[in-house]
Amino acid sequence: MPDPTWDAAALVARYDEVRAHTETLAAPLSPEDQTVQSMPDVSPTKWHRAHVTWFFETFVLAGHEPSFTPYQDQYWFLFNSYYEGVGPRYARPNRGLISRPGVHDVGLYRADVDARMRDLVTTLDGGTLDKLASTIELGFHHEQQHQELLLMDIKHVLSVNPLRPVYAGTPGAPSEPDPLGWVEVEGGLVEVGHRGGGFGFDNELPLHQQWLEPYRLADRLVTNGEWLQFMADGGYARHELWLSDGWARVQAEGWRAPFYWTEVDGVWLEHTLNGTWPVDPGLPVSHVSHYEADAYAAWAGKRLPTEGEWEHAVVADGQAEAAEAGGNLADTETYHPRAAGPSTGHLRQVYGDCWEWTSSAYLAYPGYRPSSGAIGEYNGKFMSGQMVLRGGCALTPPGHARATYRNFFPPGSRWALSGVRLADGGVR
Amino acid sequence: MPDPTWDAAALVARYDEVRAHTETLAAPLSPEDQTVQSMPDVSPTKWHRAHVTWFFETFVLAGHEPSFTPYQDQYWFLFNSYYEGVGPRYARPNRGLISRPGVHDVGLYRADVDARMRDLVTTLDGGTLDKLASTIELGFHHEQQHQELLLMDIKHVLSVNPLRPVYAGTPGAPSEPDPLGWVEVEGGLVEVGHRGGGFGFDNELPLHQQWLEPYRLADRLVTNGEWLQFMADGGYARHELWLSDGWARVQAEGWRAPFYWTEVDGVWLEHTLNGTWPVDPGLPVSHVSHYEADAYAAWAGKRLPTEGEWEHAVVADGQAEAAEAGGNLADTETYHPRAAGPSTGHLRQVYGDCWEWTSSAYLAYPGYRPSSGAIGEYNGKFMSGQMVLRGGCALTPPGHARATYRNFFPPGSRWALSGVRLADGGVR
Amino acid sequence: MPDPTWDAAALVARYDEVRAHTETLAAPLSPEDQTVQSMPDVSPTKWHRAHVTWFFETFVLAGHEPSFTPYQDQYWFLFNSYYEGVGPRYARPNRGLISRPGVHDVGLYRADVDARMRDLVTTLDGGTLDKLASTIELGFHHEQQHQELLLMDIKHVLSVNPLRPVYAGTPGAPSEPDPLGWVEVEGGLVEVGHRGGGFGFDNELPLHQQWLEPYRLADRLVTNGEWLQFMADGGYARHELWLSDGWARVQAEGWRAPFYWTEVDGVWLEHTLNGTWPVDPGLPVSHVSHYEADAYAAWAGKRLPTEGEWEHAVVADGQAEAAEAGGNLADTETYHPRAAGPSTGHLRQVYGDCWEWTSSAYLAYPGYRPSSGAIGEYNGKFMSGQMVLRGGCALTPPGHARATYRNFFPPGSRWALSGVRLADGGVR
Amino acid sequence: MPDPTWDAAALVARYDEVRAHTETLAAPLSPEDQTVQSMPDVSPTKWHRAHVTWFFETFVLAGHEPSFTPYQDQYWFLFNSYYEGVGPRYARPNRGLISRPGVHDVGLYRADVDARMRDLVTTLDGGTLDKLASTIELGFHHEQQHQELLLMDIKHVLSVNPLRPVYAGTPGAPSEPDPLGWVEVEGGLVEVGHRGGGFGFDNELPLHQQWLEPYRLADRLVTNGEWLQFMADGGYARHELWLSDGWARVQAEGWRAPFYWTEVDGVWLEHTLNGTWPVDPGLPVSHVSHYEADAYAAWAGKRLPTEGEWEHAVVADGQAEAAEAGGNLADTETYHPRAAGPSTGHLRQVYGDCWEWTSSAYLAYPGYRPSSGAIGEYNGKFMSGQMVLRGGCALTPPGHARATYRNFFPPGSRWALSGVRLADGGVR
Repeated sequence: MPDPTWDAAALVARYDEVRAHTETLAAPLSPEDQTVQSMPDVSPTKWHRAHVTWFFETFVLAGHEPSFTPYQDQYWFLFNSYYEGVGPRYARPNRGLISRPGVHDVGLYRADVDARMRDLVTTLDGGTLDKLASTIELGFHHEQQHQELLLMDIKHVLSVNPLRPVYAGTPGAPSEPDPLGWVEVEGGLVEVGHRGGGFGFDNELPLHQQWLEPYRLADRLVTNGEWLQFMADGGYARHELWLSDGWARVQAEGWRAPFYWTEVDGVWLEHTLNGTWPVDPGLPVSHVSHYEADAYAAWAGKRLPTEGEWEHAVVADGQAEAAEAGGNLADTETYHPRAAGPSTGHLRQVYGDCWEWTSSAYLAYPGYRPSSGAIGEYNGKFMSGQMVLRGGCALTPPGHARATYRNFFPPGSRWALSGVRLADGGVR
Repeated sequence: MPDPTWDAAALVARYDEVRAHTETLAAPLSPEDQTVQSMPDVSPTKWHRAHVTWFFETFVLAGHEPSFTPYQDQYWFLFNSYYEGVGPRYARPNRGLISRPGVHDVGLYRADVDARMRDLVTTLDGGTLDKLASTIELGFHHEQQHQELLLMDIKHVLSVNPLRPVYAGTPGAPSEPDPLGWVEVEGGLVEVGHRGGGFGFDNELPLHQQWLEPYRLADRLVTNGEWLQFMADGGYARHELWLSDGWARVQAEGWRAPFYWTEVDGVWLEHTLNGTWPVDPGLPVSHVSHYEADAYAAWAGKRLPTEGEWEHAVVADGQAEAAEAGGNLADTETYHPRAAGPSTGHLRQVYGDCWEWTSSAYLAYPGYRPSSGAIGEYNGKFMSGQMVLRGGCALTPPGHARATYRNFFPPGSRWALSGVRLADGGVR
Repeated sequence: MPDPTWDAAALVARYDEVRAHTETLAAPLSPEDQTVQSMPDVSPTKWHRAHVTWFFETFVLAGHEPSFTPYQDQYWFLFNSYYEGVGPRYARPNRGLISRPGVHDVGLYRADVDARMRDLVTTLDGGTLDKLASTIELGFHHEQQHQELLLMDIKHVLSVNPLRPVYAGTPGAPSEPDPLGWVEVEGGLVEVGHRGGGFGFDNELPLHQQWLEPYRLADRLVTNGEWLQFMADGGYARHELWLSDGWARVQAEGWRAPFYWTEVDGVWLEHTLNGTWPVDPGLPVSHVSHYEADAYAAWAGKRLPTEGEWEHAVVADGQAEAAEAGGNLADTETYHPRAAGPSTGHLRQVYGDCWEWTSSAYLAYPGYRPSSGAIGEYNGKFMSGQMVLRGGCALTPPGHARATYRNFFPPGSRWALSGVRLADGGVR
Repeated sequence: MPDPTWDAAALVARYDEVRAHTETLAAPLSPEDQTVQSMPDVSPTKWHRAHVTWFFETFVLAGHEPSFTPYQDQYWFLFNSYYEGVGPRYARPNRGLISRPGVHDVGLYRADVDARMRDLVTTLDGGTLDKLASTIELGFHHEQQHQELLLMDIKHVLSVNPLRPVYAGTPGAPSEPDPLGWVEVEGGLVEVGHRGGGFGFDNELPLHQQWLEPYRLADRLVTNGEWLQFMADGGYARHELWLSDGWARVQAEGWRAPFYWTEVDGVWLEHTLNGTWPVDPGLPVSHVSHYEADAYAAWAGKRLPTEGEWEHAVVADGQAEAAEAGGNLADTETYHPRAAGPSTGHLRQVYGDCWEWTSSAYLAYPGYRPSSGAIGEYNGKFMSGQMVLRGGCALTPPGHARATYRNFFPPGSRWALSGVRLADGGVR
């Protein structure tokens, strides 16, 4: 889906903007912070900074730069994430064992690739640039995905430290939300998927038809206050609310609250990027797994929406363009979900708070075809064992979310900034 | 979905028939054979025999027998499979550690419950019997599911023994199939799910609409001969054919052929319930995981069908009634898939060979509601992390398969008698 | 150490006696009981019965029987325990997965080897027989070791069954022991090791000198009653009493009492081969690990004896011959340690109750040389990571224990019938 | 064993010297290097620097400083290694997850405790200082042990990095050793253990008698060149050379050479603190486990010495004082074992190359009593499952080794700088 409007100047400007944002996010972190991998799902900050650079080096420079040579042979190996087609790679769970290249060396690598990217883009002929623009644009969105991951990951890194470190920012004042409202959606034979006219990943294609019975969608996310009621009502102790796999995890890992909550002297505290604070009842609950989201919905007598229902409702409610209009700017004050505004009869809280679990498994749309070559490994090969999330979150960079965006995580994942929106109806 | 035609005599007759079939299947097995659990997924034969008895004791006798007392207190604990609502239970992976009750004791338990079941059914008043009939009928189908599992499980138990034991029967002569044919299906807004008029599990409900684009379905299963071509073409060594999770399993477990195949002096042998024999190229490939099925389809330039496509095609092709007409009698000569007959332009091989992997995750149909009480744990709580299989297999008891039947296993499972049918098209 | 008194008739008589005792021990066990392996350390009864037969087939028949052929090729593989020199073998933790050969088939195997052994022994010329007698005698002692293991193993198998099965026998009446007495031993430059004149394993050699300072040895084993005091005084909760590895196990596995004890409604019950009964305070504590024995000694302000101290005291006290005089007959009424008799100033309880943990690591005596060939793997290769136990136990067959016998288990082992004797002094 | 010669000035001078050496060793390492924990046995450099500081804070300042308050409450928890008596502590395998305190913060912590230590020592009255001097001296030796560990640990950290980083220094020219010589030792009733008159750990006490038969000890360590012969002769493939536990590790972990050796295009390279270089045949083999040392000795037809034999030979040969005379200065050019000098009829290579595996399990000497209080956990609780090593190594700080020093590691450990000295004889 190349965007025909890209010229060299626009590409360089956007490139510089995206790249600079990564460095801005890493700036508050010490070399020690940037080195740690606190669990296999997490990558060190400096690894993220190097990997997104490797992406441009591998998929843009390597094929088009005259007399290309890798910046460093071993970087090819160290900073490949999962592209089998590019060659072997350093084992993911061991990314935190690599002290060198250090933070400064990674900065030098970034600067070198940046200079070469600018050179390449400004010297390519127009025809070649047109063909390459879509890969470069993919690189922008790839780096934005890692900006979000960088924040989710450092949040986890800091969480395992008993010193309770702060990344940045301060929390807002405690809040209370308006009551939950519902938006009615008619359904029928609807269209799902990317319509063109802007960037989309290959997994958002093709645009296709689905049949939906009439349904209702909550106009905001489930709040911490509502989650505390679920907990008080034995939510984590009642097997009948849970999927079998979820119940097994509850017991094996002793779940009794969302991921970053701890109880101290009877008060629930939450680890955030701003530090550790009492749980704010008005904010959306976050860092819950699909299993927890599903159990909550069962407790509430509701259900999670399918991804088709979510997308169609957002489009039908006129929210599809809100993301691009800036509604999903990351909250750089708190890096945390915000309280919903007053109820309006529309979907008042869609982008920029929590990735919302759906009841849909992450599978190919009918007729889906991954891109060719190693870049085809980007999305398609992960279509097994994961659930779709929609909407973006407080850590999503500005302009990155959209109505058709399909995020995905395994149903037991909790370290992503995930939340819950309820649905109802949908039955003949 | 109670069947209104059940009267006491019919229930007792069917009860006796189903119960006797279990014993027939266990008959070739020694006490030692019936005791072993060769991996956590497998249950010992005598455990199956006791568990299906426990089902009737728990869900029928306990609530309706005057002055009910359990046959043995600890059996309540030992033979509960996964019903949290019934109470705690012996750990599944340890079922093979329980030497007592022995095979003979389990026989006594079965006889006791059988006598009490006959008493109860023949002495209940009509109104109560009408209400109880659906649970008893569920017990029949439950026991049939375990008849199939008993055979899959003992197949695995015998496979780990270097003496290469035989369960029963002898294989047929080697065969060559007719070429693959394709059945064209029009699609549109179709109905999926159980229509009533006969038994169905709760997960087959409700009947609902789906939109299908035109598609094609292979008229028979993929054969061993075709699978050997896939292997010869590097099928197990080419990452680009595989889902990421599948590729990880291929490498972690060294997969290079279907589950029960071993290469001896350059010849591929297959462990079957009839013993170990050279792979027959004309028979359907069996004991492959969803990952392998998906990789094969990618290699063939095709795909797996969705469960909706599978069901609609079977109905549209007039195969829905074939199962009840006896087309899916277990092959008691070989307990093994059979070669497809000559191509006819219709779906010539549907039931009674291999459970067929679909591309659909096992999730709730829109508006699904599990049954109330502990019996509601039967299906619903497993709707996570599994893929749907359709069609029954050579180990499925007569009359147990049907067009709407939704079987499910995790995508890496190989010990079930699973095979592959290709699909194509389905794109606008 | 061949015994010169063996002639063919004596060998056959002893052979028959030893072999029959194995069958007597297996007699109360069903085919199902004989099949189960409840943990990797445990072997199924029928495996023991076959393995001791394999020993004679491999180390006696194979090298001396004219036109020897194995009874069954795969038995060579299935019933090799750990002899690398004999060839590959079936994985130890999977012995419980082998339903065939069944109990009856193993009986046929035993009978076949028995007949061939009798033939061989009675037809060999005297010179050859003299050379072979020591291997056959080793086979007797080997089978006796497995008789003991068979009982320890089936004890564990039955312990994991919530039906609380009984192997055989009934327990005695509860008892109270006389107070602990101490035997003073002078020490000096003493001899340790086998002196010849009767059977001994290679690890009891060579006879060598050790320097011992004067020390004291308890005249009986620590009792259950004393152990209950240790528990009541926080023995399992006080880190300062424990070796670091021991404390890690206490916490990882939640140890709070000996292996086979469970607390039911405030009463401690013990699983025994006679069934499950309240702990008898007068009997020796049993099924405790070296870690527990060491912690108990620290709590009591004493220590465990070295194996040299144990052996020298037994010899000096005139107990060395007691074993052969029948003092260590297995208690066929209870298969359980007995209460010590009244204190006499001598070592009143030495053989036939519990294997006694020493403070000595299981290492080679100075100048130790293992036998040549595969039989050399019998003892020497296990001289790492284990602790020595002395004295025999209630499951040791008559005539098998002796003063120089070195048993060994890893320090965390609890399923062996192990107990505790205290020592004191030994310091200049 | 307090040394009566310590006055305040001497203590402060030695304190400053020891503390400065730690910082010198850490100086070549970046913040990223100092943060990584490459396996559970390894600790991050900055953790070592903080932990040795915590030792002084906990065992000296806390009990004697007027109005003591911890520098930082959580440091108490983070930098406790294994002292149960001091309280809970951060899980050892997770030390590499703690990015904060960073390298700079740890420096501030060190400076603060240093100032307070100097204040305390110079203001205490003489009687109190006398009593405290032995704990402070223990702190010196404790910090020296961690200096050695810091180097062993960073060696491992750098080894997992495909960039092959260098810590410091350059290797010497390749060398060839003189032939192995043997030193004859008479034995008899000898004394083993610390004789007083200088520092020793509690595990070197008490001085006690052992009986030794005459034996021989090699006058230098086994070399890389000799090890290559062992490998060429199938040393890692011949089960009969190995202890059972060792053979299991060989197979489970694929051992085929010492820990830090890798074969590249037929050439064996060794990772060292100076970088990766071809194996030098004249240097002592290093980073081999006890299992490998034992297998090598079996291959050579020799054995490992007992710790008593080692110590007695060193004393009898007049090498006991060599360590203090500076013979064991760490080789700050290479941080690597050196080639032995020409054979002299004496023990020409004792200290300062490799810790030498003995055949002795690490157990208490007769009459051993650990110190009281938490400091008593220093040595005694590890007397299980480990083997003794003697002699110091190239990473041992100057003045730290001595003839009676008992180091210990589990028999499978390879990341310590361990080598092999052969023994022979010792039999009557």
